[in-house]
Amino acid sequence: MGSEGILTIDDIRAAQKRIHGVAHRTPVLTSTTINNLVGAEVYLKAENFQRIGAFKFRGAYNAVSRLSPDQLRRGVAAYSSGNHAQAVALAARIAGTTAVILMPEDTPASKLAATRDYGAEILTYDRYNGDRVALGNKIAADRGLVLIPPYEHPHVMAGQGTVALELLEETGPLDALLAPIGGGGLMAGCSTAAKALAPDIRVVGVEPEQADDTKQSLAADTRISVPVARTIADGLAADTPGQLTFSVNQRLVDEIVLVSDDDIRAAMTVAFERLKIVIEPSGAAALAALLSGRLDPLPARIGVVISGGNVGLSRFTEILSEATG
Amino acid sequence: MGSEGILTIDDIRAAQKRIHGVAHRTPVLTSTTINNLVGAEVYLKAENFQRIGAFKFRGAYNAVSRLSPDQLRRGVAAYSSGNHAQAVALAARIAGTTAVILMPEDTPASKLAATRDYGAEILTYDRYNGDRVALGNKIAADRGLVLIPPYEHPHVMAGQGTVALELLEETGPLDALLAPIGGGGLMAGCSTAAKALAPDIRVVGVEPEQADDTKQSLAADTRISVPVARTIADGLAADTPGQLTFSVNQRLVDEIVLVSDDDIRAAMTVAFERLKIVIEPSGAAALAALLSGRLDPLPARIGVVISGGNVGLSRFTEILSEATG
Repeated sequence: MGSEGILTIDDIRAAQKRIHGVAHRTPVLTSTTINNLVGAEVYLKAENFQRIGAFKFRGAYNAVSRLSPDQLRRGVAAYSSGNHAQAVALAARIAGTTAVILMPEDTPASKLAATRDYGAEILTYDRYNGDRVALGNKIAADRGLVLIPPYEHPHVMAGQGTVALELLEETGPLDALLAPIGGGGLMAGCSTAAKALAPDIRVVGVEPEQADDTKQSLAADTRISVPVARTIADGLAADTPGQLTFSVNQRLVDEIVLVSDDDIRAAMTVAFERLKIVIEPSGAAALAALLSGRLDPLPARIGVVISGGNVGLSRFTEILSEATG
Repeated sequence: MGSEGILTIDDIRAAQKRIHGVAHRTPVLTSTTINNLVGAEVYLKAENFQRIGAFKFRGAYNAVSRLSPDQLRRGVAAYSSGNHAQAVALAARIAGTTAVILMPEDTPASKLAATRDYGAEILTYDRYNGDRVALGNKIAADRGLVLIPPYEHPHVMAGQGTVALELLEETGPLDALLAPIGGGGLMAGCSTAAKALAPDIRVVGVEPEQADDTKQSLAADTRISVPVARTIADGLAADTPGQLTFSVNQRLVDEIVLVSDDDIRAAMTVAFERLKIVIEPSGAAALAALLSGRLDPLPARIGVVISGGNVGLSRFTEILSEATG
C-alpha cells in the first residue's frame, strides 16, 4: 500500500480525541526576542512541558489506549533508554495495566528511577552486546505482552502528530514547520498533520550532523544506514530511518537541515536566558537550526517543535561547558 | 485615610484593562510531581514568562500608561538595579516616551545592556555613597520627568495586583496564596486582589531569613528597619517595608514565612528539573517556602507567585554550586 494509507489526518484527529484530558495541551510560546533574533515570526510548541517531559507520551498513550481489554489485562512492554521508557510506563499506569521496560544497564540511575516511579518493571541489558529489538520481542512473546515500539507503529506516529495538529490549530497556516528527526515518528506524524492543515507549508526535518541518516536516505531515495558519531542530541542518534516513518517522511518532508552540537548548545542557552525554559539537547535541535541561520530562504511564519526537556541540572551544565566553538 | 483607600480591587481591575494586550497573561502551571512533593494542589503563576522576564512590567506599564500627554512628552525616570529598570524602559518605549534609568555603576553589563536595548538612557551612581532616591528625584526634577517608583505608588501596586487577579480568575478560590516580599508592591497588589476574590484565603508573604523586615514590622505593628545580610535573593533584600505597601500588607497579609538561601536553591533546582523552567532566586522564594515544608498547616489548594526568571546561565550555575546545606 502507499504511505498515504499508513497515516492520515483522520488518524491524528482520532488520536487527539483519545489523548484529550490525559496528555497536556502544551503552550505555544512566542517571544519578541526570538522573533528579532531570527527575523521572522516564530511559534514554539513546548513539548518540554508535556507529561514525562517530552512529546513521547502522546504516541505511547494513544497506542496503549487502543489495546483491547484482554491485551490490557496482560500488559505492555517497551525498549528505550530515554523518554519512550517513561512515556510507556506512565501510559500503562493511566490505562490501568502494567509495563515491562527494557533499558540498557548503563542507563543513568535517575532515568531508571523515574521509569520505576511510574510503576514499571525494569529489565536491563548490555547495550553493546544485546539486541534490544530481539530481546524486547522475546520478552513480549514469553509473557504475552504487547510491545509498544518507539516509532514504528501507526498509533504511535498518530499520537506524535497531535503536536503539529495542536500547533496549527492555534497559529493557523504557517509557512514552515521545523521538527527534529530521530527514528522519525514525530516527523511522520507532524508532517502528515501539517500538510493536511496547510498544504503549502514547507516541512523541514532537523538532524545532528553526526546522525544524518534521514538526509542521506532522502537523497538516495531509499533507507540508508550511517555510522553515528557521538552527539549531545542522544535522542536523535539513530543510524537508520524507520521503515514506516521513512515511507511517510519521504513523501512529506521537503528538506533536512543539519545542526552541530554547538548550534544546539547555543539554542539551549538562548532558551534558558531569553525564554526561561529548559530544553534537552535533542529537543533544541529544531530551534538550533533556526537560530544558526541554516534555513534559507527564511520563511515569514515558522513553527518549531521543542520536543523535550529531560536533562538534569548537572548534565545540562556539563553539556554547556563542553562547547567547542 | 485608611489603607483601604490606597488600593482597591477596582484599581486592579482598571489596571488589568490597561495592560491587556500589552503585558502577557502568563500561564498558570500545574504539575503532578509538584503536587506529590508538596501534598497539595499547587498553582504556579509563572511571571518568569512575563515581558522583561518578571512581574515588574505590569506595574511599570500601568503607571506609565496613566500619564498625561504632557507628561509623556517629557519622559519618565526610575532607579533600579534590577527588573524595574527594564520594566520602566520597555513601558516607556511602548507608551511612546523616553526613560532615564539610574543604575548602580557596578550593575552587571548584561543588565545595563538589556535596559539600554529597550531604548532607555542609563545614568550610573556609586551604590555605596549615593542615595538613589535623592538622586532619582533630583534628575526627575531637573529634567521635568515623572519618577516611576519601584513599589511606593498606587498605580504600580495595582499593576502588580493583576498577577493574583489573573491567577484566581483561572483557578477559582484558593485556600492560600504565597508571594515574595521585597519592597512589598507585589504583595500589596496581590493581597488586595486575593482577599477581594476569595475573602477566606490565607495570604502568606515570603522573605529571605536575611531580610525579614516585613515579618518584624508586622510583629511590631510598625515599620522596622533591619540590617540586611547577603542573600542570593537580591530582589528581596529590602531593609524596610514601603510606607504605602506596608499599610496595605499590614491589613491583608496573614503571616510571613522565612526561607534560607538553600531552600531557594532547592526550589530553583526542582523548577529546572521537574517543571523545565528557569526561576531567578527572588522568584523562587515562594515555591521554596512551600517545598521546604515551612507552611503549617498545609492548605489544600495553594497559589504560588513565581515572580521572575532573570538570571543568566553562568550566574545560575554559580548560585547553585554555592549551596551550604
